[in-house]
Amino acid sequence: MERKNLIIGLFGFGCVGKGLYEVLEKTPRLNARIKTICIKDPNKPRSLSSEHFTFDKNLILNDPEINTVVELIDDADAAYHIVKTALQAGKAVVTANKKMIAEHFQELIELQKKHDVPLLYEAACCASIPIIRNLEEYYDNDLLESIEGIVNGSTNYILTKIDEEKVSYANALKDAQEKGYAETNPTLDTGGFDAKYKLLILIAHAFGIIVKPEEIYNIGIDRLGELELNYAKEKGLKVKLVAIGEKNSDGNINAFVMPKFIEKSDKLYSVDDVFNGVKTKSFFSDTQFFVGKGAGAYPTASAVLSDISALSYDYRYEYKKLNQEDTLELDNSVLLKVFLRHDLEYGNSFKLLFDDIQETYSNRDSGYIIGVITLENIREIFAKQGLESSIVLFDLVKKTNSQIAKGIRVQHTYA
Amino acid sequence: MERKNLIIGLFGFGCVGKGLYEVLEKTPRLNARIKTICIKDPNKPRSLSSEHFTFDKNLILNDPEINTVVELIDDADAAYHIVKTALQAGKAVVTANKKMIAEHFQELIELQKKHDVPLLYEAACCASIPIIRNLEEYYDNDLLESIEGIVNGSTNYILTKIDEEKVSYANALKDAQEKGYAETNPTLDTGGFDAKYKLLILIAHAFGIIVKPEEIYNIGIDRLGELELNYAKEKGLKVKLVAIGEKNSDGNINAFVMPKFIEKSDKLYSVDDVFNGVKTKSFFSDTQFFVGKGAGAYPTASAVLSDISALSYDYRYEYKKLNQEDTLELDNSVLLKVFLRHDLEYGNSFKLLFDDIQETYSNRDSGYIIGVITLENIREIFAKQGLESSIVLFDLVKKTNSQIAKGIRVQHTYA
Repeated sequence: MERKNLIIGLFGFGCVGKGLYEVLEKTPRLNARIKTICIKDPNKPRSLSSEHFTFDKNLILNDPEINTVVELIDDADAAYHIVKTALQAGKAVVTANKKMIAEHFQELIELQKKHDVPLLYEAACCASIPIIRNLEEYYDNDLLESIEGIVNGSTNYILTKIDEEKVSYANALKDAQEKGYAETNPTLDTGGFDAKYKLLILIAHAFGIIVKPEEIYNIGIDRLGELELNYAKEKGLKVKLVAIGEKNSDGNINAFVMPKFIEKSDKLYSVDDVFNGVKTKSFFSDTQFFVGKGAGAYPTASAVLSDISALSYDYRYEYKKLNQEDTLELDNSVLLKVFLRHDLEYGNSFKLLFDDIQETYSNRDSGYIIGVITLENIREIFAKQGLESSIVLFDLVKKTNSQIAKGIRVQHTYA
Repeated sequence: MERKNLIIGLFGFGCVGKGLYEVLEKTPRLNARIKTICIKDPNKPRSLSSEHFTFDKNLILNDPEINTVVELIDDADAAYHIVKTALQAGKAVVTANKKMIAEHFQELIELQKKHDVPLLYEAACCASIPIIRNLEEYYDNDLLESIEGIVNGSTNYILTKIDEEKVSYANALKDAQEKGYAETNPTLDTGGFDAKYKLLILIAHAFGIIVKPEEIYNIGIDRLGELELNYAKEKGLKVKLVAIGEKNSDGNINAFVMPKFIEKSDKLYSVDDVFNGVKTKSFFSDTQFFVGKGAGAYPTASAVLSDISALSYDYRYEYKKLNQEDTLELDNSVLLKVFLRHDLEYGNSFKLLFDDIQETYSNRDSGYIIGVITLENIREIFAKQGLESSIVLFDLVKKTNSQIAKGIRVQHTYA
């Protein structure tokens, strides 16, 4: 099969852009070359001579010779406009911007259909783990039951440091920032938003459900405190930030991002530092597990390279499951067994929100409740500002038949 | 994209065939149905009524309505004739028979090209780990450096039992046979042949090199004895049977199957029981790792299902790297650091075959040498019959520039 000749317009020449340029230099058989690079900052030192560069995006977007746009900039809004314009101009697009994809998912699918061009984004979810490709190709059926993973390298690095060196969250974050694994404003990662955007994309390919970012609940690692971190250490557990997408017995989807206690026997236990890991469970093949570096210039560039290579064979995502499952919804009545840390004064009112309480503890400062609660009620608790609470998931809990029949709704009064 | 309608002729209705039938019943959207099932044994009790079955393979191979053949029988020779005839008749084929594929690899590629039909075989390598698909799609470039994995579930089950329960190889094998994880004649698995066939297929897709089965050296687990198993236990290591394919600095390929000492930090360490695990290392994405069940009716059936689904979208392997790398060879001068156990009388003559000796040990019965030796010389040692020797790999050793320049050749005299 002849490879299509790809003439690439590249947006962004930071770590990943530079990494991609180096990678393409090493793979001449790919029949792909970068013609023009659009950058924003004239003063940043560049390793290439200036005739490659432009500040004018239209030099790429209006160039009929350029048939492929690779978008590697940070700004999700600017990225959206570039990607939309490129698709409308009939150019194939490769992007790594998960926030942009998550915020405009439905529209981006429609643009691909309308202009008959592909948009690929393997690098947007877990960098070098080919998870989207596998969801599109290998799990091309209805049998996938769940997908669960550590999908953010920044927070995993921080959590590994806390666990291995017994430092506080604040100190681990500082170390991560110094090493370049966390941003000056780290909230996108530490608040679980990055993981949420990735989960949105994953569940679209896994289950055929498209939701808006605000529909997926995310709790990050920025609330984690001594009580729960010591609990983990004492019980031989690790705390990991996990993104979970699961088909429940009603046929709907549970999807959320939350810190979780991980046991030693769990495959995710040994996924540390900047590594990501994704577990899939399907009816017939049991558990499968993919591990790889989830961030960094080279892992991201290798995922982008893989998409560029796929474009040369006219590959596109088929979104097969989207055509099938148009009645799926997210189910916020899902029951979760959790560890909820709370200020002493809120203990009693929080207990009312639990379906079932198994353990409680308190000291002079705070307390925790271990029990079963709906995701809905967790959202309610954390929607109140100023509360010093945190939550760590143990596991999802299967509803009993009578609970399903009743349509779970918990009576609650909030003091 | 419209799914092609697949009318399937199935050969074999054992565990995997039955598993596949059940799986297809659960996935009606696949637009694939089994029209006819060809079996060998009239007396085996079948769960389906008899009108589905035939003993005449031509009822499938000559049926113009059947456009897809799924081959799930044990006999590699019979499978070869069925697959060849099916391809020649323009029918797409899915098979799980690694021995058959390995023994006729070049011809099977040519038949696909000549008759313009696909042959898919994800289930032939590691059942439910989508490794071939990933090698075809994600690693579609020259940058893959190595692939290393536990690819045989039977031997991994045995080794796990030895490690966890401290039983002998003979007793662990007996237990595996009783549980159905090993055959009455287990040599295909325990001799490392099954792993070799899989490795042959993997390196074709990974590096674009086609070899004959006899060119890949395999040592299984059937020689393992107390001296090396105790050594492992004392050093906190596990012994795993690994298949390794690696590009060396000359550009050629090292490929072989051997027991290997695995450290706790190695991702393969926690791949136990019937699970398989495959590590890939490529220049830019560092290490990736895939784990899944490597055997059993359901995992194999799910891989076959995935291939059937791919056929409905006209998928075929492109063998892209085969078109590129037609000068690759296997390099038997590769240097390996090994643990070689030997009868006392052979100690001195074996030492002569080593490039470098680091440790030696002996007791009243036998001894071991730890050192660096070429694969060529290992083959020489084990070619002699009646020698009570065994080998466990520590790691491959990089050649120095002078060794490469000289073209490694070890002088040896064999007493």
